[in-house]
Amino acid sequence: MRPSGRQTDALRPLSIEPHVNRHAEGSCLIRLGNTHVICTASLEERVPPFLKNTGKGWVTAEYGMLPRATNTRMRREVKDGPSGRTQEIQRLIGRSLRAGTDLVALGERQITVDCDVIQADGGTRCAAITGGWVALRLAVNRLLKANAIQRNPLDHPVSAVSVGLYAGQPVLDLDYPEDSEAGVDANVVMTGERMIEVQMSAEGSTFSREQMAVLLDLAAQGNGILAQAQLTAVA
Amino acid sequence: MRPSGRQTDALRPLSIEPHVNRHAEGSCLIRLGNTHVICTASLEERVPPFLKNTGKGWVTAEYGMLPRATNTRMRREVKDGPSGRTQEIQRLIGRSLRAGTDLVALGERQITVDCDVIQADGGTRCAAITGGWVALRLAVNRLLKANAIQRNPLDHPVSAVSVGLYAGQPVLDLDYPEDSEAGVDANVVMTGERMIEVQMSAEGSTFSREQMAVLLDLAAQGNGILAQAQLTAVA
Amino acid sequence: MRPSGRQTDALRPLSIEPHVNRHAEGSCLIRLGNTHVICTASLEERVPPFLKNTGKGWVTAEYGMLPRATNTRMRREVKDGPSGRTQEIQRLIGRSLRAGTDLVALGERQITVDCDVIQADGGTRCAAITGGWVALRLAVNRLLKANAIQRNPLDHPVSAVSVGLYAGQPVLDLDYPEDSEAGVDANVVMTGERMIEVQMSAEGSTFSREQMAVLLDLAAQGNGILAQAQLTAVA
Amino acid sequence: MRPSGRQTDALRPLSIEPHVNRHAEGSCLIRLGNTHVICTASLEERVPPFLKNTGKGWVTAEYGMLPRATNTRMRREVKDGPSGRTQEIQRLIGRSLRAGTDLVALGERQITVDCDVIQADGGTRCAAITGGWVALRLAVNRLLKANAIQRNPLDHPVSAVSVGLYAGQPVLDLDYPEDSEAGVDANVVMTGERMIEVQMSAEGSTFSREQMAVLLDLAAQGNGILAQAQLTAVA
Amino acid sequence: MRPSGRQTDALRPLSIEPHVNRHAEGSCLIRLGNTHVICTASLEERVPPFLKNTGKGWVTAEYGMLPRATNTRMRREVKDGPSGRTQEIQRLIGRSLRAGTDLVALGERQITVDCDVIQADGGTRCAAITGGWVALRLAVNRLLKANAIQRNPLDHPVSAVSVGLYAGQPVLDLDYPEDSEAGVDANVVMTGERMIEVQMSAEGSTFSREQMAVLLDLAAQGNGILAQAQLTAVA
Amino acid sequence: MRPSGRQTDALRPLSIEPHVNRHAEGSCLIRLGNTHVICTASLEERVPPFLKNTGKGWVTAEYGMLPRATNTRMRREVKDGPSGRTQEIQRLIGRSLRAGTDLVALGERQITVDCDVIQADGGTRCAAITGGWVALRLAVNRLLKANAIQRNPLDHPVSAVSVGLYAGQPVLDLDYPEDSEAGVDANVVMTGERMIEVQMSAEGSTFSREQMAVLLDLAAQGNGILAQAQLTAVA
Repeated sequence: MRPSGRQTDALRPLSIEPHVNRHAEGSCLIRLGNTHVICTASLEERVPPFLKNTGKGWVTAEYGMLPRATNTRMRREVKDGPSGRTQEIQRLIGRSLRAGTDLVALGERQITVDCDVIQADGGTRCAAITGGWVALRLAVNRLLKANAIQRNPLDHPVSAVSVGLYAGQPVLDLDYPEDSEAGVDANVVMTGERMIEVQMSAEGSTFSREQMAVLLDLAAQGNGILAQAQLTAVA
Repeated sequence: MRPSGRQTDALRPLSIEPHVNRHAEGSCLIRLGNTHVICTASLEERVPPFLKNTGKGWVTAEYGMLPRATNTRMRREVKDGPSGRTQEIQRLIGRSLRAGTDLVALGERQITVDCDVIQADGGTRCAAITGGWVALRLAVNRLLKANAIQRNPLDHPVSAVSVGLYAGQPVLDLDYPEDSEAGVDANVVMTGERMIEVQMSAEGSTFSREQMAVLLDLAAQGNGILAQAQLTAVA
Repeated sequence: MRPSGRQTDALRPLSIEPHVNRHAEGSCLIRLGNTHVICTASLEERVPPFLKNTGKGWVTAEYGMLPRATNTRMRREVKDGPSGRTQEIQRLIGRSLRAGTDLVALGERQITVDCDVIQADGGTRCAAITGGWVALRLAVNRLLKANAIQRNPLDHPVSAVSVGLYAGQPVLDLDYPEDSEAGVDANVVMTGERMIEVQMSAEGSTFSREQMAVLLDLAAQGNGILAQAQLTAVA
Repeated sequence: MRPSGRQTDALRPLSIEPHVNRHAEGSCLIRLGNTHVICTASLEERVPPFLKNTGKGWVTAEYGMLPRATNTRMRREVKDGPSGRTQEIQRLIGRSLRAGTDLVALGERQITVDCDVIQADGGTRCAAITGGWVALRLAVNRLLKANAIQRNPLDHPVSAVSVGLYAGQPVLDLDYPEDSEAGVDANVVMTGERMIEVQMSAEGSTFSREQMAVLLDLAAQGNGILAQAQLTAVA
Repeated sequence: MRPSGRQTDALRPLSIEPHVNRHAEGSCLIRLGNTHVICTASLEERVPPFLKNTGKGWVTAEYGMLPRATNTRMRREVKDGPSGRTQEIQRLIGRSLRAGTDLVALGERQITVDCDVIQADGGTRCAAITGGWVALRLAVNRLLKANAIQRNPLDHPVSAVSVGLYAGQPVLDLDYPEDSEAGVDANVVMTGERMIEVQMSAEGSTFSREQMAVLLDLAAQGNGILAQAQLTAVA
Repeated sequence: MRPSGRQTDALRPLSIEPHVNRHAEGSCLIRLGNTHVICTASLEERVPPFLKNTGKGWVTAEYGMLPRATNTRMRREVKDGPSGRTQEIQRLIGRSLRAGTDLVALGERQITVDCDVIQADGGTRCAAITGGWVALRLAVNRLLKANAIQRNPLDHPVSAVSVGLYAGQPVLDLDYPEDSEAGVDANVVMTGERMIEVQMSAEGSTFSREQMAVLLDLAAQGNGILAQAQLTAVA
């Protein structure tokens, strides 16, 4: 039924390759089917002005796409600032990673997680959150090893997956052909059993509480598998 | 328990004054407590390029805030394009109103809904959706009266309300003091019994499926009251 | 003779409603016929760099228009900075209010007057100056009441009115249909009997010293009435 | 009494050198004391969209300053569009030249007058109008010679001069030291005996009808001399 | 003598992996030591306006760097357009590739070569030209295979290499530590035995004709090796 | 053979007029045939942040063109920052002048050289370097006369000239008609017998080592004449 022939509750083939960048404090290349994202975590020993002298750190994120990550070449976003879509995504990644970070344990330093899509096939923001957490964790590991921090500010992995109603059916991890046809789609960010963010929306349609429940069940299942892969990558 | 002394399930005082702008095809001033938003609907007999010759129309939205709508004066957004927050909000308003509109029945024309906050006290995006639908409906009424369209492209009102966990308690329609302290907050856009968009997020926290359910119940109750006021305003 | 049926020396119906914004130190809504402008005065206890440690304060102004303030919806000025017209107007408002303010008596603080046109029908810059002075005065009153300043830095009201040659006749307070047809038009800013700024210009035409004199007489008459209304509003 | 030792009613030494640019259809270098402006008129056989198929032409102007035209080096205006001051000036130049042009006689073509200040010492906008008219006239002469137009669209020269109250005295043609101290200053654009634009303004001061009259007399005298020099330059 | 221990005439380890992007018409990942660049060639069946109806095609290039390609994280170029350095590089890449392309044989179509540096260690613009030609050639191969063009518009490979005076010694293929210390450095773009572009410059130094000759010999040797690798990659 | 009838090794008529700007610390107007450039040197007693407390000074350059410097009027570069071409040129001028300056002898101060083309006919960047050095030297002379510096930071003049292959022939100092047709062209910056920068490039063509040698000989000859004129101008 799905264009790719996958089961409705099947993730795409997943790989997370750590340490792909020699300069960054943490990095990985996450591949979820044909969606490929390079994630790097950059550490700075300073915080934004509003956190100065609070003892708290900060985690923020930026998101980009190479021009030919997509089927048709896109213009570079070089002139008018990041587009609304780009800003929405990088705010989501930042909020999600912060929700899973003990900013006091991190101390007064900032980690910037860059997620750059080198090839896209749907679900790039979810892959960015999942890969971004791995890069973040590798940077934190380095801080722990150097005794720069005493306590690990990260607990359970933070991961995200998309779910949606495609051809009337609830499906997990939509690829681009599904995403562009789905009546309802959602991004669900989780850590362990709990949720950090749910964005479920219908374009030209609506959904009921029952449909929402089924989709959230699927997302929980997908996020469980992603969390396992994240733990393996940072081990 | 709430700073305003309201019950946990109480909306703020609500008024929707229609026809506040002599130029616009539809307009209203919505007041939800101290949050005041002017909404205008502007009709153009043309559609964006991707809809040309499809027979379908378009509804889009823009959002702004006067510099002193807030407690501290904000800079005007005149140079670098609308901020990420502004773009996120205007995309949400547009998606929400389109989800409640039969774009084929509207025909090849575009309605732009401008939502300008003249005084803010939390919940401006929800007030903008609720008031925006009223302005949209008044513009559609004019098309119907002029026989420019045969069928009403709008059905149930589209409204939105915020809910959240404040001091651990689920509350309806957060004002600014609550919003800035809430561990979890959500905007829920509905039409009749069904949902159009749910954005629930935790900053520095998480939430369970049970907490989510309670919040969605509160939102459904609030949206029911808003829909009544919308119908009265356009009658 | 005039499209509105007014006498050549008649102002449009005028109302100035003070205290329309709960956050601003001073505010009003001025209505001159169908031209409606919200004016707010925002106080900050700091001055621009060039005034630091001079003991002198500053008054500045910004001007905006909601997109549907006009008959045809205008684009928001969000990307390339305020247009030439907007900058010209906000510089005029700032100069005019400063000319009527004793900046030494104000002390090292800045008041920013925002004038936002919510509905336009000609004469918006003049209405902005007239309403802006009311907002400014209300903010100053608050400083006086709090004993933050000893001496009132404001004396006579500063007001402005447009005059012009419409269909060859000198007329007072041009509305949009007149303004777009006038061969000569002028904005005259006054305080008491004296002038602060006169901008008289002809597009595709010229004017004599005699015509100028008649127009300035009309303007003096109009500004006298505006000053009365300003004093009533701030009483 | 004046810093330069000039009489109160004396212009600075004036020269207008025509044909200084081999590419432009018309050009001159105007020197008014130490204020030097290169003016070029560029002809295009097209008009702005709003004039298409109206049979009418257009005259527009742009204004610039080399970074070291002034005593202290200024930043180039390369990023955020022309400043408010620059836009105000170029709008004034354009309006002034158009007021002295019969746009129907010009026919459907556009002349852009560029006024670039290579050295500044006050009064640059007035020198730009005066020199700009010379460039414009030389371009028009070429059209007449080529029989591209039948009727001369230009009549009397359009010129401009500054006047002001310096140290309480009315003075003609303010240089920079006077301009920065003047309580009231004005730019007066004239053609023959009639006025095209008067901008008289006080910063931190006011002026009476009597003072205005004296200043306008001075301006008329100065503009008479400028017109003679313009006619000589284009002969 | 060299920080890396390389011989003065040794290139860094080189690999060119073709077909790394499933969307692009041609693509490769070029690695020259720790400098890694993704190159994609995007084909469009349209040309820039100045080539319409000339029968000639166009090749253009864009260049970017991921924020953490460098040792210290750089800001994304999202607001003020590409930096001067970026523009200089992408103009160089475009000119170089065009010099090696028969634009008439290409026909009226455009190929855009994007070169995105995912890790940098000096010599990125040279790697971009070398890898960019491979991507371009793979896109052209596809056109040939589809019989869209009759004649191969590409002949010898176009490649580029840096040379310079490091610690007084002529060296080939400078890495970042060498590049930042070199008194003279040059980028030499070649095709076969002939040169397309030589940019040799000294910062705070000068060079003689003899030194220039030695450096150009080194460059010719390096470009010979690069050309072999390019041919292997596209075979 | 050349459009201008010049010998292949002949410069255009050259004049360098010093002291053309009363505000600048150093200035000249250089005319090379119909290419005319105003160069000013502006001194500031501060350096860019990266040089603070190093005892070293800085020389930088900016480049501009009046809109009608060229045959067809160009748009002003006021909105999106200087174009790639402009930035490339101003970086080249700055590098060239710095290479001929002992920044330690200059001391912690910055000199900004502005090169503004008032009329263009090819070779503007070379004229800007040659004239820019004169302005720089005049500003340095003033520092020496005031005993602000002890040692002259400038030695031999820095000059630049273009050479190229026009109609297959090596020619010196290309004017616009030659420049737009040349298969290979180069800008050669020299001081005394040594080179500072060579940029030789072919668009749609290639060149051999032998051709390069002939062109560099021509450039050395041209730069020798320019250096003499520079020394005369600053004497």
